[in-house]
Amino acid sequence: MELLDNLNWRYATKKFDATKKVSTADLDKIKEAVRLSASSYGLQLFKVLIVDTAELREKLEPASWGQKQITEASHLFVFCNYSNYEESQVDEYVGLKASLNGLNPEGLKGYADFVKGALSNHSEESYKVWTAKQTYIALGNLMAACAELKIDSTPMEGFVPEQYNEILGLSEKGLNAAVVAAVGYRSEDDATQHAKKVRKSNEDLFEVI
Amino acid sequence: MELLDNLNWRYATKKFDATKKVSTADLDKIKEAVRLSASSYGLQLFKVLIVDTAELREKLEPASWGQKQITEASHLFVFCNYSNYEESQVDEYVGLKASLNGLNPEGLKGYADFVKGALSNHSEESYKVWTAKQTYIALGNLMAACAELKIDSTPMEGFVPEQYNEILGLSEKGLNAAVVAAVGYRSEDDATQHAKKVRKSNEDLFEVI
Repeated sequence: MELLDNLNWRYATKKFDATKKVSTADLDKIKEAVRLSASSYGLQLFKVLIVDTAELREKLEPASWGQKQITEASHLFVFCNYSNYEESQVDEYVGLKASLNGLNPEGLKGYADFVKGALSNHSEESYKVWTAKQTYIALGNLMAACAELKIDSTPMEGFVPEQYNEILGLSEKGLNAAVVAAVGYRSEDDATQHAKKVRKSNEDLFEVI
Repeated sequence: MELLDNLNWRYATKKFDATKKVSTADLDKIKEAVRLSASSYGLQLFKVLIVDTAELREKLEPASWGQKQITEASHLFVFCNYSNYEESQVDEYVGLKASLNGLNPEGLKGYADFVKGALSNHSEESYKVWTAKQTYIALGNLMAACAELKIDSTPMEGFVPEQYNEILGLSEKGLNAAVVAAVGYRSEDDATQHAKKVRKSNEDLFEVI
């Protein structure tokens, strides 16, 4: 099964080869896997910044516990969740759904109201947590897509969101840096690639009831 | 690209065919995709309950806004995150890592202490949020695995965690119901399967900076 082969192949790369860049064609495929990711109510309440500029990456490295993947990977994906609920988030989705399916948006008003009701029940904090969680589905698909393309990736939570938000100007856009993925090609001397994958046994992880 | 084909094929199934069961061989593959999922520090701070018993599923349906997928799908995966930090969570991982790689666990003590330091910095609430987020990576891999096997799946957040925790006896195990996936085969008369997939454009979702 291809997904299982790919998940077995991948590992969290500690040292990237800074001279190797991911092609535009491959980047487009990785982006498509992110774009197709499932999200709550289909709302996709996040944005993905692909940080290419060396200067920005150099600013982000100290905000990422000094981890070198930030500057040495080919590309840096910053998954940013929307922090605050706005009705327009639902209206835009419903408009898109209507136009793609040739429907009158008015016919979806009942559904839109239901979703708005559910979303407006969140506190500011729980909304932010909820939208952040969903970026992890997209992060997972990014890792799976990279592995299928034999491109290395490292999911990274070791960064200071407040510093990312400031450096990348996220707060004024209503966004928050949720999780990061460094994408590129492993360095030959990254010893981590030779370590055995550590996973709990089925018995520890699953319970059939 | 196979992952993209599979992500395009899948949709959040609203009505399952209650007469069709996923085979044990396919279930094993889905579980393996979940097991291989990346997690923070590799700790896999979650457990997955696969609810098979009809009686339990009937109790869970009203705790899930009455959604019929809970009882009609072939299998119900409940992703449960660990709510509280315990040193043993790190010790078990380090022990497993050492034994798989033929290392002396003592040699990993520095790393274990670093991880323990990071984890014990969490408040009770932020720890729970952090472990919950990671289950969404596994949820994403479950959906991708199902799609590769042409098995339908529905990610579900529409349930009352407190009720799940009580019905499934999760709290006393230090667990919390984070997210659910119904897995099985679509009913022929599930109209949702004919709807166009709604996704933001690349321009709306990505920004290269």
